[in-house]
Amino acid sequence: MRVAYNEQMTELADLLGEMAGLAGQAMERATQSLLQADLRIAEQVIGDHERITDLSAQAEERAFALLALQAPVAGDLRSVVSGIQIVADIDRMGALALHVAKIARRRHPAHALPEEVNGYFAEMGRIAVALGASAREVLETRDPERAAKLREEDEAMDDLHRHLFSVLMDREWKHGVAAAVDVTLLGRFYERFADHAVEVGRRVIFLVTGELPSDMPTPPAQHVG
Amino acid sequence: MRVAYNEQMTELADLLGEMAGLAGQAMERATQSLLQADLRIAEQVIGDHERITDLSAQAEERAFALLALQAPVAGDLRSVVSGIQIVADIDRMGALALHVAKIARRRHPAHALPEEVNGYFAEMGRIAVALGASAREVLETRDPERAAKLREEDEAMDDLHRHLFSVLMDREWKHGVAAAVDVTLLGRFYERFADHAVEVGRRVIFLVTGELPSDMPTPPAQHVG
Repeated sequence: MRVAYNEQMTELADLLGEMAGLAGQAMERATQSLLQADLRIAEQVIGDHERITDLSAQAEERAFALLALQAPVAGDLRSVVSGIQIVADIDRMGALALHVAKIARRRHPAHALPEEVNGYFAEMGRIAVALGASAREVLETRDPERAAKLREEDEAMDDLHRHLFSVLMDREWKHGVAAAVDVTLLGRFYERFADHAVEVGRRVIFLVTGELPSDMPTPPAQHVG
Repeated sequence: MRVAYNEQMTELADLLGEMAGLAGQAMERATQSLLQADLRIAEQVIGDHERITDLSAQAEERAFALLALQAPVAGDLRSVVSGIQIVADIDRMGALALHVAKIARRRHPAHALPEEVNGYFAEMGRIAVALGASAREVLETRDPERAAKLREEDEAMDDLHRHLFSVLMDREWKHGVAAAVDVTLLGRFYERFADHAVEVGRRVIFLVTGELPSDMPTPPAQHVG
């Protein structure tokens, strides 16, 4: 029973790690499609999204089977329950990358972004991909100290997001309302992607230690503006 | 054991229903604070938010205790696992109402919304509150047919959201970029609130029937513009 349990737990953890990897890859490509107005890459992200959805369903089924057949307790139970919650976060990260790719596709052959803000999105994309990789690493290593660092990485995203809004709100914004709407939504998608990665870290800390660090409350409700 | 289990399941269901009620109430008040630029009501929503967060933590703890002490199987296990997932959706609904109230507070004493779009938000607020009430009802009755209707209710939200974006994208938009940014974010908050209510319905259908209706896939990724 114990061996089967350990094997199944490893399989679940591997699935979650794989999902985080795919979500990070999706955001990397979505950013590329956005910055380069590349329809082919946008379509690829959109087409590949089903894979993340499939893995979500698989991960949920495995977690469910673990609970049904092994009836784990204490730390083991915490791992499975956290796994179920983490699936939802990573699934959402994939959906946010999909949203970015869809905006790139909608505006093609035009660029969705005014050149003025390309640098912000290149950097937000870089941070998002790094957070995806960190989430994957944390899922594989279960290192709570590494998990806590996701929050620090996210601070750079919050700073960029704030700066982006000050650019938008500036009277000198010359790119019209339609571009401002796209930039607002895109900024939000990157920020939310990062928040979900931080949440994965928070869940891993909980599953390892049984408690949430006191300096790590639920992510702040609203960074915007 | 069985009696204790039933009691604990009822307590968990009641908690989820209470949370959905609070999230609906928060969105009702947040909409009021937004439409009337009413700082007092905005502050009330912001101050009350902790209550939803507390109930989330309580609901998660109860679900965990149920799994640990009762080791439920089959339909009972599905109920508890769905409960854990539903907590996250309702928690998010509360956070989205909080975001709306924070924008109202940030723009006070000015109105965040140009008068031109007040009607849209009054109606989106009405639908959001109705969806919150429906989610609560579905959690209490576990009626899968009623749960499926949440999706229909959400269609009106999607329509409004689309119309709102066509107003924003119109060359005649006269209210500047800052107002457009607020309207974009606010529109998204209402739409996401509705999506999470639909997701609660979807989870209830799953927990009752053991499967998701074929005409009810994961909510569409992106309704915007």
